[in-house]
Amino acid sequence: MRYCSECAGAVSLQSLEYDSRKRYRCNTCSRVHYLNPKIVVGCVAYFEDRVLLCRRALEPDRGLWALPAGFIEEGESLEEAAAREAEEEAGLKLDLQRLELYSLLSLPDINQVWMTFRIELPREPTLRAGPESLEVALLREGDLKVNDWAFSVHLGNRPVVLFEQIRTKRFSVHTWSVGGKKTAV
Amino acid sequence: MRYCSECAGAVSLQSLEYDSRKRYRCNTCSRVHYLNPKIVVGCVAYFEDRVLLCRRALEPDRGLWALPAGFIEEGESLEEAAAREAEEEAGLKLDLQRLELYSLLSLPDINQVWMTFRIELPREPTLRAGPESLEVALLREGDLKVNDWAFSVHLGNRPVVLFEQIRTKRFSVHTWSVGGKKTAV
Repeated sequence: MRYCSECAGAVSLQSLEYDSRKRYRCNTCSRVHYLNPKIVVGCVAYFEDRVLLCRRALEPDRGLWALPAGFIEEGESLEEAAAREAEEEAGLKLDLQRLELYSLLSLPDINQVWMTFRIELPREPTLRAGPESLEVALLREGDLKVNDWAFSVHLGNRPVVLFEQIRTKRFSVHTWSVGGKKTAV
Repeated sequence: MRYCSECAGAVSLQSLEYDSRKRYRCNTCSRVHYLNPKIVVGCVAYFEDRVLLCRRALEPDRGLWALPAGFIEEGESLEEAAAREAEEEAGLKLDLQRLELYSLLSLPDINQVWMTFRIELPREPTLRAGPESLEVALLREGDLKVNDWAFSVHLGNRPVVLFEQIRTKRFSVHTWSVGGKKTAV
């Protein structure tokens, strides 16, 4: 950050009263510009023993399979963001009321927090790959190898646990952190 | 947003390929500036039947009582942010490993997501009001009236449920949304 987004004046890192961190503040209009981690919302949509996955058309990890996921937009709830990603990437319309929190992952080194919701699909859905996907499908555990997954950190590097939970329908919210000062997986 | 934070060029709302929303893009250097909701992290720290609350020294709601809470900073995990707020506002050092997710609230109308963590304190703590607090204390349910609370939306407007959960030590993660296109409380 070099310039003020409101007045185009130069910004500099300044110490503020009652604030332990230096902040970018405009030298002209004095506006303070805070930087904060961003939220990525993902979606585990499953039918019987299969999970909705999208083969990525974009880098990073083009060609690998991932849960539908993306940045939450202004004006959205978390659940709306999860449902929008499933619709944009796979043409799937989800019932917002049936989304449940699945996991919560802090990635402090890249200033992101990933929140994943789960939903059991009431019937075999019709899917349609959106522009960010080469292909979309409901896949079984055995359909993918470890190296076929993009961002498996999103699942705690444990796709095997996800499929086990879906089989048993026993879920618990997994909250963890990768990177930063303390690493607890 | 009027100017590019990297080159000070004027920005305008533009349609991008593969993007359903218009974005602020710099007319000079073409950088796209995304706007996203911010994360507020709060902390329910309790000892026996009392919860740590801070009487706010700042507006809004100066003089009312709130959980320690604030925006997550770059480079922090959610738990680190919750612990930092408890330390800054009340002088309380928390064990990160013992923080558990308590609730998750989307506030799409103000582009915030509030995440609250809970922790049982192992002993009666020594508290010290930070610069953002007029006073800090462990309070019982009967110590506050409804109108004494700031941001009780943070607790689903249900401080009574919080105290009930602390008494019974039975918690479940409450995920909900207030405002936006759909309201589900």
